[in-house]
Amino acid sequence: MTDRMTRDDLDNLEQRYRANLINSLSGFKSAVLLGTTDGKTNNLAVISSVVHIGANPPLLGMIMRPHTVQRDSLDNIKQQGFYTLNHVNTQWADKAHQTSARYEQDESEFDAVGLTPFFSDTFSAPYVKESEVNIGLKVAQHFSLLNNTEMVIGEIQEVFFAKDALDKDGYLDIEALNTASISGLDSYHSSKRLARYAYAKPNVPLETK
Amino acid sequence: MTDRMTRDDLDNLEQRYRANLINSLSGFKSAVLLGTTDGKTNNLAVISSVVHIGANPPLLGMIMRPHTVQRDSLDNIKQQGFYTLNHVNTQWADKAHQTSARYEQDESEFDAVGLTPFFSDTFSAPYVKESEVNIGLKVAQHFSLLNNTEMVIGEIQEVFFAKDALDKDGYLDIEALNTASISGLDSYHSSKRLARYAYAKPNVPLETK
Repeated sequence: MTDRMTRDDLDNLEQRYRANLINSLSGFKSAVLLGTTDGKTNNLAVISSVVHIGANPPLLGMIMRPHTVQRDSLDNIKQQGFYTLNHVNTQWADKAHQTSARYEQDESEFDAVGLTPFFSDTFSAPYVKESEVNIGLKVAQHFSLLNNTEMVIGEIQEVFFAKDALDKDGYLDIEALNTASISGLDSYHSSKRLARYAYAKPNVPLETK
Repeated sequence: MTDRMTRDDLDNLEQRYRANLINSLSGFKSAVLLGTTDGKTNNLAVISSVVHIGANPPLLGMIMRPHTVQRDSLDNIKQQGFYTLNHVNTQWADKAHQTSARYEQDESEFDAVGLTPFFSDTFSAPYVKESEVNIGLKVAQHFSLLNNTEMVIGEIQEVFFAKDALDKDGYLDIEALNTASISGLDSYHSSKRLARYAYAKPNVPLETK
């Protein structure tokens, strides 16, 4: 049974209730930790707004809210120009969520939640050692959207993952690596593969890989 | 064991291999069918680039590639200003993937893959009857990004879902509604909830909901 909610219905909801509902509508989202630094304090923030922009050059986008707990991360990105994205693991999703608490600016979320920063020799922003997939990015484009959120697009500089999780066609099996997903604002999920499908052609039965 | 790939390594990969890999890096993605019309033919395209922009006003974004099979959808959106987003269900993910085949412009993917269009009395774009969550949107902002992809942001006009899947705080249980997720370009997944976590506070143990 399907019910309808009009725009008026949505506008009349209590603010927190509406935030939960609208955040559920976009479907399952990537669970990622954003690693930044101001040169002294290493900052970590869970985000669920990462979106693929392109493969060549390799670009990832994300939506940031400047007037929230994400402000320190955004300031660091503006100051340094570099940041990392690290997959949240199903085994420690609670630690990822805990980074959303409002810590002081000079307090590191790494220490507060019990995750370990590591630095590669060529990159200034902190990675999360416990993540199975680490991505180092340099800001490529940064602008405001109509509701005063900000979109940051980064160009991938380097990536870390276990190569034995790579399929022969380049697909990285992030399910085998226990990457988590998010729905709504606070629900974390593991996954179970239904299938990989071959390139689809008109009037030809779809094959699985 | 974690291996590193530098930007040079990524740039030297074969094109399709790189597309599979980079598309895997963004983590789990929303599996959604984009419904549009030119007034005659109802168009359906699977997309995995939906991103939450804001709850008040309710805004969803998506990244579109104008020089691919998505061109017809994009033309319809430009012409009409309205479109729908419909959650892909784990029970018919194959039909969703089949919409990515290169059908003729005057051929409806609804007919081709066996899904059913429905129209609400106040909205011009087609919804997918088999989806458990249907969202009607009006274009609010549309612009090009640095790699010539296009970002379309839509304002939600109406939503359809079963209200018994709503939690008391507004969270919509899209796992109970069998919403699928995507990793890479062609892998479809069901989900299993790990936990919902309460609002996180510094130095207070995280509680589950």
